[in-house]
Amino acid sequence: MFETAEIGQKIDKNVFRKREPEIRTALIEAQRALRARGVGVIIIVAGAEGAGKGEVVHRLATWFDPRGVETHAFWDETQEEREHPRFWRYWRAIPRAGSIAVMFGSWYTRAILDRARDASDDASYEADLHRIAALERMLTDDGVLIVKLWFHLSRNEHRKRLRKARSEGQAVSPHTENILEHYDLLMRLAERAVRVTDAQAAPWRLIESTDAKYRDLTAGETLLAAIRARLEERPTAPSIPRDPEPEPDAVTVLDRVDLSLSLSPETYRTKLDASQRRLSNLAWEARTRGVSTIAVFEGWDAAGKGGAIRRVSQAMDARLYRTVPVGAPTDEEAARHYLWRFWRHVPRSGYMTLFDRSWYGRVLVERVEGLAPPEAWQRAYLEINDFEEQLVDAGVVLLKFWMHISRDEQLRRFRERQETEWKKHKITAEDWRNREKWGAYRTAVDDMVARTSTPDAPWTLVAANDKRHARVQVLETFCTRLRDALDGKV
Amino acid sequence: MFETAEIGQKIDKNVFRKREPEIRTALIEAQRALRARGVGVIIIVAGAEGAGKGEVVHRLATWFDPRGVETHAFWDETQEEREHPRFWRYWRAIPRAGSIAVMFGSWYTRAILDRARDASDDASYEADLHRIAALERMLTDDGVLIVKLWFHLSRNEHRKRLRKARSEGQAVSPHTENILEHYDLLMRLAERAVRVTDAQAAPWRLIESTDAKYRDLTAGETLLAAIRARLEERPTAPSIPRDPEPEPDAVTVLDRVDLSLSLSPETYRTKLDASQRRLSNLAWEARTRGVSTIAVFEGWDAAGKGGAIRRVSQAMDARLYRTVPVGAPTDEEAARHYLWRFWRHVPRSGYMTLFDRSWYGRVLVERVEGLAPPEAWQRAYLEINDFEEQLVDAGVVLLKFWMHISRDEQLRRFRERQETEWKKHKITAEDWRNREKWGAYRTAVDDMVARTSTPDAPWTLVAANDKRHARVQVLETFCTRLRDALDGKV
Repeated sequence: MFETAEIGQKIDKNVFRKREPEIRTALIEAQRALRARGVGVIIIVAGAEGAGKGEVVHRLATWFDPRGVETHAFWDETQEEREHPRFWRYWRAIPRAGSIAVMFGSWYTRAILDRARDASDDASYEADLHRIAALERMLTDDGVLIVKLWFHLSRNEHRKRLRKARSEGQAVSPHTENILEHYDLLMRLAERAVRVTDAQAAPWRLIESTDAKYRDLTAGETLLAAIRARLEERPTAPSIPRDPEPEPDAVTVLDRVDLSLSLSPETYRTKLDASQRRLSNLAWEARTRGVSTIAVFEGWDAAGKGGAIRRVSQAMDARLYRTVPVGAPTDEEAARHYLWRFWRHVPRSGYMTLFDRSWYGRVLVERVEGLAPPEAWQRAYLEINDFEEQLVDAGVVLLKFWMHISRDEQLRRFRERQETEWKKHKITAEDWRNREKWGAYRTAVDDMVARTSTPDAPWTLVAANDKRHARVQVLETFCTRLRDALDGKV
Repeated sequence: MFETAEIGQKIDKNVFRKREPEIRTALIEAQRALRARGVGVIIIVAGAEGAGKGEVVHRLATWFDPRGVETHAFWDETQEEREHPRFWRYWRAIPRAGSIAVMFGSWYTRAILDRARDASDDASYEADLHRIAALERMLTDDGVLIVKLWFHLSRNEHRKRLRKARSEGQAVSPHTENILEHYDLLMRLAERAVRVTDAQAAPWRLIESTDAKYRDLTAGETLLAAIRARLEERPTAPSIPRDPEPEPDAVTVLDRVDLSLSLSPETYRTKLDASQRRLSNLAWEARTRGVSTIAVFEGWDAAGKGGAIRRVSQAMDARLYRTVPVGAPTDEEAARHYLWRFWRHVPRSGYMTLFDRSWYGRVLVERVEGLAPPEAWQRAYLEINDFEEQLVDAGVVLLKFWMHISRDEQLRRFRERQETEWKKHKITAEDWRNREKWGAYRTAVDDMVARTSTPDAPWTLVAANDKRHARVQVLETFCTRLRDALDGKV
């Protein structure tokens, strides 16, 4: 495949001088239009070490208006990055709507190098590439423009350059020297990467890099064409019909929850104490062994999410966990893919994050209230499963609780809250409005559980009409899952 | 001093039951008022290991509305944290305006423990405490409410508890066991810390912690009183008069810059090549040796900041540096102390950040345009000096460039920009307006240089009427400073 980029293309100095100002002007215009339209752009600058990626990055920095461009170099992983799921570092670099991220190195670099160094095998290399394709699809679905440039140099050209650099006593990057030795292998792996991830929404462009002027001008023109094509696109009408009205009496997974379950105060006290003590020890053990945990709490308004979370967190040393209440996104969050804000809070090895509401908002409130278009929330099941799979693959213990109460019980609690001074703030007009949509939420919960309960990340439906029973169920589930994980049973 | 918290205070169960709901209600109210007024709160939960800090943190989590409260536990430093100036991790935890940060452990913990372990001496312990006091003053000046709670247990009580925990087979945090052994030393160090940092704007409150109910209720009441006092304060009128009109002909430090300096194209090419090559090698060496660099570029509009930055960055491998253009803050940034957004971008060991405009905006544009009140920008000189001192103490090489041109030269460049297609975007109505305030900016620059040019972080005034001269001056200064730092001459 790369032979197509070994045909000796070059550009005359005078031609370059004439065309450079044109392309600069056009890129600046394009950048302004992107900003106005709120389109984020990721430019992946890939290719073998020594092909001039760095020079291209510098050139782009000159051509674009630096306000609104960030360059991210993915190179050595920091300790903090190693203690998170692999893609955590890439999610940190996702550009805001309307701005540009130049990725020097990228999610491809590590996958290719790991395989080259035999740190992964063919199967996991394929899995890496498919995960990359999924990430790119997720971002392009969200409206991000991804431009992928592969800069190629023939083996001879590599050899020539290295020789020249050495003879002139130039500083040579530590990786450059290895290229020639492993040239065939790297090209084979690169070719495979390009093949698997050459999607319509994020196609690759190979650029011959022997002549710097040809290389830079072609990069600029490719970018420009991609941006223009994107700006000319009409927003397509949602292809999927609006959510049908739910059958009010349809049987859902929630009907299987036995809401009559309850505990006496004495049994509650005993069981709560025992499981909190157990969890306290498990949390220390998890920290010592570097096992991290994420627990998601979803449920009806007033179902007791907060109370359950507190019973869990009270059991643990406050240094071992963080609670993240999920409310309205900040502007930095709203300007990016909706999963970005959750990636931010993925704990490092040995620690725990408790989410009070979560990414499931996408397929619950955003679906029911029409805050996300149907194609967005329908896509979200896949995106969420992929996200959670990455967490689990990285060794995270993932717990998901749906706190279930009956509609009557909810009414009773709403009234009680209104009557308790320090609980009043918990009940708003919005809660009453949500209550009216009970049927639609039931359908949404049913779909959510059906589509996102996986063996490694199952939903626990909590019978929460009795708060005591609910809390003990949550704590005991917590302990069991954590124990199993620490015993390697998952 | 701590004897005042060993008098055996306790609270009866029934009293607690009666008062807890009152205090919860009041705290919820207070929290709402804080949010409405945009006041950020830092609650420091300090005291010896085992005094029940964790339980207090849990209690507060129950009492406050969890939306808008974040708990930060400062414990083990991550590798990433170790590779930054010490306070970097604390700045990451500064709460947004209107929200609450509970700090479990805090900037005090490490200072005290370092001294206890002889990792620091008396002099540097004092320095640490004064730096902490400066940080707290900076935050309270900015409108943050800091409530500092010290939870105290007598030696006997510590002994009793440890014995009990052991006999019951409870998990004991790894640090608890050491307390008794080092009790006197820790108390002496703690007492010193409390003395040095017991400022009017951020006073300490000692809380006897033998009885959990007394401890928690007192913590709640202290908090409540502090919040109420803060909410009742009238915003004081600025005590300092508005900036006087500048003398248009006053001689400033800028007059000493020889704007006639220039370089021929040939000399420029030779010198640029030589210094870029030198910088390329220095940047690699700095990375290898873990020396990080921050360069600040300020200057008149159209003075050539961007061009100078690019000549610097082109010299280096794009993985070694980041360029941060400083424009309007995001909402996450605007909701915090103005230095927060710059702390975010402090590079880790071995890397470089180039700031295109910087924290000096506070004493330049914000002063001249009246965007910051006089007491805020006047305070900023001290804050900036302290910030930069921390960077330098952490081994960061700090370069500050003021790109200077004459007013006539600026006019010529504005016109040229308007006539060049791909430069047009650089010139706006605002630039023309700023130009009218040349005199006020001159005064501001003069003050800035006078007050913030320190031996370790001097300003370099760049003669920039000739772009070639300016770029070479920047690059050569860069190389010299970096070389000196690597040779240990700074």
